[in-house]
Amino acid sequence: MLFDLLENSGAWLSDQDLDQARANLPIVYVDAIPVRVDSSGTVTEVGLLLRALPDGTISRAIVSGRVLYRERIRDAIMRHIEKDLGPLAFPKLPASPQPFTVVEYFPDPTVTGFHDPRQHAISLAYVVPVEGECVPSQDSLDLMWVSPADATSPEFEAEIVGGQGRLVRMALAHCGLLL
Amino acid sequence: MLFDLLENSGAWLSDQDLDQARANLPIVYVDAIPVRVDSSGTVTEVGLLLRALPDGTISRAIVSGRVLYRERIRDAIMRHIEKDLGPLAFPKLPASPQPFTVVEYFPDPTVTGFHDPRQHAISLAYVVPVEGECVPSQDSLDLMWVSPADATSPEFEAEIVGGQGRLVRMALAHCGLLL
Amino acid sequence: MLFDLLENSGAWLSDQDLDQARANLPIVYVDAIPVRVDSSGTVTEVGLLLRALPDGTISRAIVSGRVLYRERIRDAIMRHIEKDLGPLAFPKLPASPQPFTVVEYFPDPTVTGFHDPRQHAISLAYVVPVEGECVPSQDSLDLMWVSPADATSPEFEAEIVGGQGRLVRMALAHCGLLL
Amino acid sequence: MLFDLLENSGAWLSDQDLDQARANLPIVYVDAIPVRVDSSGTVTEVGLLLRALPDGTISRAIVSGRVLYRERIRDAIMRHIEKDLGPLAFPKLPASPQPFTVVEYFPDPTVTGFHDPRQHAISLAYVVPVEGECVPSQDSLDLMWVSPADATSPEFEAEIVGGQGRLVRMALAHCGLLL
Repeated sequence: MLFDLLENSGAWLSDQDLDQARANLPIVYVDAIPVRVDSSGTVTEVGLLLRALPDGTISRAIVSGRVLYRERIRDAIMRHIEKDLGPLAFPKLPASPQPFTVVEYFPDPTVTGFHDPRQHAISLAYVVPVEGECVPSQDSLDLMWVSPADATSPEFEAEIVGGQGRLVRMALAHCGLLL
Repeated sequence: MLFDLLENSGAWLSDQDLDQARANLPIVYVDAIPVRVDSSGTVTEVGLLLRALPDGTISRAIVSGRVLYRERIRDAIMRHIEKDLGPLAFPKLPASPQPFTVVEYFPDPTVTGFHDPRQHAISLAYVVPVEGECVPSQDSLDLMWVSPADATSPEFEAEIVGGQGRLVRMALAHCGLLL
Repeated sequence: MLFDLLENSGAWLSDQDLDQARANLPIVYVDAIPVRVDSSGTVTEVGLLLRALPDGTISRAIVSGRVLYRERIRDAIMRHIEKDLGPLAFPKLPASPQPFTVVEYFPDPTVTGFHDPRQHAISLAYVVPVEGECVPSQDSLDLMWVSPADATSPEFEAEIVGGQGRLVRMALAHCGLLL
Repeated sequence: MLFDLLENSGAWLSDQDLDQARANLPIVYVDAIPVRVDSSGTVTEVGLLLRALPDGTISRAIVSGRVLYRERIRDAIMRHIEKDLGPLAFPKLPASPQPFTVVEYFPDPTVTGFHDPRQHAISLAYVVPVEGECVPSQDSLDLMWVSPADATSPEFEAEIVGGQGRLVRMALAHCGLLL
């Protein structure tokens, strides 16, 4: 969620206007945890992106991004998954708009533990099985598939900023797979 | 749910023992509402089975059946979908075990409005997208795909017994598609 | 949701800035369906507000309003319930942030059927039992408690604008009480 | 869930019949995680029971028990909470029957990690705020209120058998409070 800087090129809102909105309003986001599932729907692997941060460090991340003006939530999820996993990922979005949780990212990291230095974002979070071939695209350096156990290990979680490691654990708890 | 009489042939429990259990314990069921979805996961059609009832009448129905001893819930859903829609339906079960609702079927139709003359059944209800070819099998006479609007019309609902017409409306409400 | 015009007096955003944001971004809302429950938590009544619209007509409505910058979702729900039902309503918010649905209100009434002429709003919807004394306040003319059956009757639904009658039915479906 | 041996005294099913059913059918359970919440509904404390096990050891536990024949799910939750926390606990059951998860307890501890040596139980799990005075009753030795952080600490989890420590973490994840 920290690095969707490019998404506004040619979009509805100038960077300046977006900056002003971000200083005054909560911004609507979607978070998608990409997973592989077996034939009965059980999660077997979690997809984690590798991203370069503006400060030169790198971080693991899930798919995350803004919902645009007049954009349906489903279309926003599809757009961000395609942006991060490529056009052949074939995501299977849930039939219901009910998210498994709502994440409140604050500029102040102490409010909820979910942190976004740029803005107050309210993000609808979904677990999204992807069936096709995933190719990290745009600003993602890499995509890694790990087991639920590995995805919640302290080693991986230490590589994820902004609280998204906790979000991965919440997603796996929702799927009955928190160890 | 009224017509899974055959499922115990060769199974763990004799018909007599099952009858006794049904007279003394709530029985665990799964209800699956089969749906077709578009590429972004929006429900476009609902699958309704046509079944012959013991009394000679016919009724629309959804996929429904018992969870067996030591059977995983996912495996029970897969088994009942295959039994009713054939082996090529390719159901996409949700990644989470959280049902969208729990249905309480009582022998007395006035308790919850969900009615099963044979037993007290507690059923975990899921919306299940199916992607493959569906062929009504076993005791189903027919399978019909109808739009969400048609599935909740009074005409169709009049053809569904036991309260499952209401369950279809609850499923569509959960999917944001109740008209 | 149509009439929270006063909420910005003295708040973080000028009316002009809010207007500009509304023309460019989806705005985060919360919708709360106030209910009375019995001792085992079953919904017995739904609370519907009566509101005067700018065009001189009146409409039934549920509690609805914007989430402010740096405001927690829970605090927004509490604030809007107090604004509409008074300070002694004693709402019992759910322990989980998972909404029962997410409503997408569009300026164009044909997109989702949920309509807000002023803006694109994305609203997290919750069922909220209230235990205390409710006194319609501010811009509400009246508060009426009706049975689940009445709340979903065509007569009441005809008096609710913007699709919120449908939202009440979705809430009751979630509570297992859609007839 | 291991110690509801007394609940059948004088009930619908003889111990012998229940034993036979348990050897042949999944048994319907409810699990309730009792919590204290603040005025905006945020979980502040989790209630953990202390119970003596048949083998002479003691274990932390949540409220758990069987749903009886022709008993509503809500009534079963109320009954078990009263049994464990006393008649003045004043539990606030959720308005919706949708559980936050469904737990599959197996006699074989390796199937799901949720373990019940006596039976295959399928349990609907709910987070239940209690507002009144709680007095451990019947077979509970003690009731302890701990912070969400403490409830998920390795120390506490080591004192909970059958996987219910994991269930507490899943409940807190659902409430947005998993650390």
